[in-house]
Amino acid sequence: MSVTAAKGFTASGIAAGIKENGNPDLALVVNNGPELAAAGVFTSNRVKAAPVLWSEQVLKGGLVSAVILNSGGANACTGPKGFQDTHATAEKVAEVLGQNAGEVAVASTGLIGLLLPMDKLLPGVEQAAAQLSEHGGEKAAIAIKTTDSVHKTSVVTGTGWTVGGMAKGAGMLAPGLATMLVVLTTDAAVESDALDRALRAATRTTFDRVDSDGCMSTNDTVLLLASGASQVTPDETEFAEAVRKVCDDLGQQLIRDAEGASKDIKVEVVNAASEDDAVEVGRSIARNNLLKCAIHGEDPNWGRVLSAIGTTRAAFEPDQLNVAINGVWVCKNGGVGEDRDKVDMRYREVHIVADLAAGTETATIWTNDLTADYVHENSAYSS
Amino acid sequence: MSVTAAKGFTASGIAAGIKENGNPDLALVVNNGPELAAAGVFTSNRVKAAPVLWSEQVLKGGLVSAVILNSGGANACTGPKGFQDTHATAEKVAEVLGQNAGEVAVASTGLIGLLLPMDKLLPGVEQAAAQLSEHGGEKAAIAIKTTDSVHKTSVVTGTGWTVGGMAKGAGMLAPGLATMLVVLTTDAAVESDALDRALRAATRTTFDRVDSDGCMSTNDTVLLLASGASQVTPDETEFAEAVRKVCDDLGQQLIRDAEGASKDIKVEVVNAASEDDAVEVGRSIARNNLLKCAIHGEDPNWGRVLSAIGTTRAAFEPDQLNVAINGVWVCKNGGVGEDRDKVDMRYREVHIVADLAAGTETATIWTNDLTADYVHENSAYSS
Repeated sequence: MSVTAAKGFTASGIAAGIKENGNPDLALVVNNGPELAAAGVFTSNRVKAAPVLWSEQVLKGGLVSAVILNSGGANACTGPKGFQDTHATAEKVAEVLGQNAGEVAVASTGLIGLLLPMDKLLPGVEQAAAQLSEHGGEKAAIAIKTTDSVHKTSVVTGTGWTVGGMAKGAGMLAPGLATMLVVLTTDAAVESDALDRALRAATRTTFDRVDSDGCMSTNDTVLLLASGASQVTPDETEFAEAVRKVCDDLGQQLIRDAEGASKDIKVEVVNAASEDDAVEVGRSIARNNLLKCAIHGEDPNWGRVLSAIGTTRAAFEPDQLNVAINGVWVCKNGGVGEDRDKVDMRYREVHIVADLAAGTETATIWTNDLTADYVHENSAYSS
Repeated sequence: MSVTAAKGFTASGIAAGIKENGNPDLALVVNNGPELAAAGVFTSNRVKAAPVLWSEQVLKGGLVSAVILNSGGANACTGPKGFQDTHATAEKVAEVLGQNAGEVAVASTGLIGLLLPMDKLLPGVEQAAAQLSEHGGEKAAIAIKTTDSVHKTSVVTGTGWTVGGMAKGAGMLAPGLATMLVVLTTDAAVESDALDRALRAATRTTFDRVDSDGCMSTNDTVLLLASGASQVTPDETEFAEAVRKVCDDLGQQLIRDAEGASKDIKVEVVNAASEDDAVEVGRSIARNNLLKCAIHGEDPNWGRVLSAIGTTRAAFEPDQLNVAINGVWVCKNGGVGEDRDKVDMRYREVHIVADLAAGTETATIWTNDLTADYVHENSAYSS
């Protein structure tokens, strides 16, 4: 269902020849209205790809009529020519669809530092436009894959309205592993300001807390487009919760498909003095390579959790820290707790709870283990 | 030569039975004076091992008569009993040597969360004291190894005085991988304040800029002991430079022996607006797992260098960044530069230069590649 689950949207996904292996590599999502309200969130990396620079400008207007997305090339670190290519792509979409190029968002993913093959991409836009369909969401989701093993889609339905979306990548918005591209659509009648609030609130606790390997992409893009085709304006809280659910679901799918991972690790920080403390501690644990190796080896190594906590500025006393791994409190009051042999780590999901004993705030960061497969995949794949 | 290269010091290294495999695991370094001046630098991790908490107190007095170091157990996250054990170890050394326990520094390395086998350690202290020798530096260096494949020592000679030292570990002081323990000795007549200045200045640009995997230990300790036995007080600048050289040499040895590494990566940041900017950028590049994988695959992936730079707060313009890998400027002005096929990456040392084009400051961070061997070693070894 993906981006065409909501009324008012058509989409397509085709093989334009950008990828040398002939796999699908160009997706088009079109908002047929009646409204064109939109919001976007982009990478916080200061080295931004040309399509990010372009789409940030487009989103300032609050209106998006179409999104063109390619895999097979990030168009990052490509200088003025790269930006011209993004501009030309938007112009081509606008020309074919009879729209305004200033309302066409562009997203790219793939190798950094290579110019896109415009002789293939521009004819591909015509082909993608010709195949636009109310059932094209699935094909669009497939066309944006790079190292993804599966395509990712999600849909949440409200009373008379729907929020749907697609995602590629395995990582987080800021920072992010590889590139994360997400397009969400809704037929709810919501103005761009409210879309922006809902999207920022949702990404803050979902994509922003998915931290597969701590690396931030130059291309991360999350867009939310509203057609208003349902003619229903939902309660703002209800709508925001639907957007959050779709983001959360897609974020979980990203983690489960992270490069080379054999474990999905839920790092839950509890009893923090502030939410910022909880996030800082969670991220520090999630990025600790030694711990990520230990989890890969099914070793409930709470000492590495404490080492990671100790590098943060969060409020805590070392002798009051508690750590549970898969329900067993292996560390109590900063020292040895329950028998670590009780911890069952055979399953893919691993749940670490870090209790800071310093307040009442909480945050959850999702990450993966560090594996030889991750090394192999990222040693061989130039991206 | 190690810690006994300077006059006034004796040392020993023995197998006390702390390590189950029977390898040497206890080292003793004694300052026979006439002076006992000392300085120390410790991990900045807020979760500090018992011996760090103890030795920080000892060093406040500026006098150290002996250092007892064990491998085979970190005595970290071991609560009040762990601290009592450290205290008892210092008391035992003082008793055997006829010294003051408040002048005995203690350092430990190995597994976190386990109490030390005091029934083996305390008799080991007597054995180590019995074997003290002016030629014992090498044996001491061997006894502090954990996953180190070789022991590390270094000596620099001034006019009538000497600075020597030993190190174990593969990482950095703050933060550090595994535990880094370093003992430096000198027969120069230098007071503790001057020792402290020299040691802090040296570690700031040596051990602090060795960042094998971004993980910070609970036990990192660097001590500098001066016996005054040469009866020479060197020029402060000359002495500080000798200390820096020994630290630099030992730091290089740590990097070359880092767990699982196949490449030693020198990340040199040039033309930064400030030294802090240069260090922040260097560290961000050095910790980028995707780049470390690429270097392992001998892929001169400058896009990942730019992505890493982009996550920092340093002053730079994306379209003015330049990156050289092994002498080839593969990225110029934020985009494609010289032909990446010109980059020869067959050798163990890889040199990355990141030119921020924002000033005149510079900093160099040393790191390693990320390999399947690193994952294997740290999945199987609970530390």
